[in-house]
Amino acid sequence: MPTEESIAKGTGVLDKLFGWKIDPKTVTQPFNRITMGNLFGDVWTRPELAIEQRSMITVAALIVLGRESELRMHLRGALNVGITRVQIEEMILHLAHYGGWPVAATATRIAQEVFAEIDAGK
Amino acid sequence: MPTEESIAKGTGVLDKLFGWKIDPKTVTQPFNRITMGNLFGDVWTRPELAIEQRSMITVAALIVLGRESELRMHLRGALNVGITRVQIEEMILHLAHYGGWPVAATATRIAQEVFAEIDAGK
Amino acid sequence: MPTEESIAKGTGVLDKLFGWKIDPKTVTQPFNRITMGNLFGDVWTRPELAIEQRSMITVAALIVLGRESELRMHLRGALNVGITRVQIEEMILHLAHYGGWPVAATATRIAQEVFAEIDAGK
Amino acid sequence: MPTEESIAKGTGVLDKLFGWKIDPKTVTQPFNRITMGNLFGDVWTRPELAIEQRSMITVAALIVLGRESELRMHLRGALNVGITRVQIEEMILHLAHYGGWPVAATATRIAQEVFAEIDAGK
Amino acid sequence: MPTEESIAKGTGVLDKLFGWKIDPKTVTQPFNRITMGNLFGDVWTRPELAIEQRSMITVAALIVLGRESELRMHLRGALNVGITRVQIEEMILHLAHYGGWPVAATATRIAQEVFAEIDAGK
Amino acid sequence: MPTEESIAKGTGVLDKLFGWKIDPKTVTQPFNRITMGNLFGDVWTRPELAIEQRSMITVAALIVLGRESELRMHLRGALNVGITRVQIEEMILHLAHYGGWPVAATATRIAQEVFAEIDAGK
Repeated sequence: MPTEESIAKGTGVLDKLFGWKIDPKTVTQPFNRITMGNLFGDVWTRPELAIEQRSMITVAALIVLGRESELRMHLRGALNVGITRVQIEEMILHLAHYGGWPVAATATRIAQEVFAEIDAGK
Repeated sequence: MPTEESIAKGTGVLDKLFGWKIDPKTVTQPFNRITMGNLFGDVWTRPELAIEQRSMITVAALIVLGRESELRMHLRGALNVGITRVQIEEMILHLAHYGGWPVAATATRIAQEVFAEIDAGK
Repeated sequence: MPTEESIAKGTGVLDKLFGWKIDPKTVTQPFNRITMGNLFGDVWTRPELAIEQRSMITVAALIVLGRESELRMHLRGALNVGITRVQIEEMILHLAHYGGWPVAATATRIAQEVFAEIDAGK
Repeated sequence: MPTEESIAKGTGVLDKLFGWKIDPKTVTQPFNRITMGNLFGDVWTRPELAIEQRSMITVAALIVLGRESELRMHLRGALNVGITRVQIEEMILHLAHYGGWPVAATATRIAQEVFAEIDAGK
Repeated sequence: MPTEESIAKGTGVLDKLFGWKIDPKTVTQPFNRITMGNLFGDVWTRPELAIEQRSMITVAALIVLGRESELRMHLRGALNVGITRVQIEEMILHLAHYGGWPVAATATRIAQEVFAEIDAGK
Repeated sequence: MPTEESIAKGTGVLDKLFGWKIDPKTVTQPFNRITMGNLFGDVWTRPELAIEQRSMITVAALIVLGRESELRMHLRGALNVGITRVQIEEMILHLAHYGGWPVAATATRIAQEVFAEIDAGK
């Protein structure tokens, strides 16, 4: 199971991606600990890919798999690490050809909603 | 339907990605013309994303969707546009958490086969 | 990229399928232009399959893939090109065996909602 | 097509799983008859697997396929045949590795909603 | 469980679709009986959709889901009930936009193999 | 990243499931270490579900997702932890209704191949 150090690193990644301030001591439920320590703490911080690249391939995966709520979250993460709105729209246009138009249509709707929420200060 | 100009641009992209020398005049079957002109000619050449970024998100999509034969082709494309073997392995490790271990295990097997073929001069 | 002629043909298909009156000049966003010109303008109008056949296989694809919002739209399209409610229900019953009961249950719910909306004049 | 006897057996299974009291005579729509008779009446009652095992593998399938509304229903069924909340949370943690984190995140949200509804007497 | 009459009807459908001569008395394994009686015997013979329409939507489902071995079988079925090679190629071209290019590429390869086998008298 | 202790526990699980004798010191590649330590070492050994239950839900997930090579491996694991051939065939029959007939047909073929290999002493 993940160490306290891994969990602390994971909360740092979530702060950077989503602006979430999470006290590592509050991460107690087993699946949350695994997610925070193994996925965000250990994997997302590995130097073999930059965080912008991890964000981009994560968004690509979520678009083609049609995972709506996770996509909503990671679109904000993508913007926070410097991927532009134009690049996000272009990823959707590109990936329409690999995952099909329906997942691209859903991603377009979610992206527009996220952009509008940000513009409204939410 | 795609123009001759789009189809010529598409054959250029396939040369860059896969080293395929295709005479645009031989692209006559409708689905092949659409793929060559609309997808490779018009979409892959749009400047909003660099070809390395398009390659990376395409590989990400193919990994999580488990599309084996297309992945084999685009892994060679990724290496040809400058993505390293270490980065490919890291993408698989990262995406195991988004598409599940079985698609990552399949991608690992295919990547090792592609790397071995290249080392053997195929 | 799609020509103005293709985009105009696409708006004609959307009128026939969904009763949408779209001025081709308002279709400016790149992904919208590709969807309108390449998919609806160039593909949906090809004579190799009748529009009723295209509608039927599109609905079949959307049912088994579980793409809810697109299914809602294309169920109305199917009814508009002459596919009956009985045929739609039968497609769901048949495809339950190919995509699984859960996608069929979802399609049943959406079809009932669409039928009720139409009966209510929406 | 299913016999009246199969349909009556199916209503018995739905009572046991979900507490639904359905009069077999009201099951008249063809897809409902097939679902009730073939799936719940004939398959779910076969002795080769216990109902707890059928419930567990059904929930596993619905988690990894991301079928939300069916999952909500079958999580209640799982609890009703004796699978515990701890076991359900553990299934999600385990299956995150086979279907990916996004389907596990969705299943976690749905499970918490179902548990809260039950605690609120709904 | 399916009746002998349903199973006999199912063997008739398999003869019509695939030219398979199966003695209903040899269908004894439970899953085979359910497939033969419930799916081919009871569902495929319902008059609400013609067998050509059932074949077409089944092929559409198999293309977008990427189910290769079943697609191979049902492509022969489609040809046997009167769907043409041109229509099959057009279905693939159309559905590339709904299921993505990789499943269309796979379907194209399988269709070419099936057509070649038939031309070779296999 | 996983500890040596987690990796050693993971090799123990692989021995129990698949009869593989792996020296933990040979597990050096990052993705292999994560798989061995996090998934097999830490998750598969958690007491909230028995190994037979983990095997059963893993097989269920692999059947409905159509992950062929992993299914082949885990069918042997299922037999090794006491799940019977009859139960495996029944799981396939049951899950045909949740993931669709094509994935069940594939699982049936793979199961028959695995059973035959075992009977032939492979």
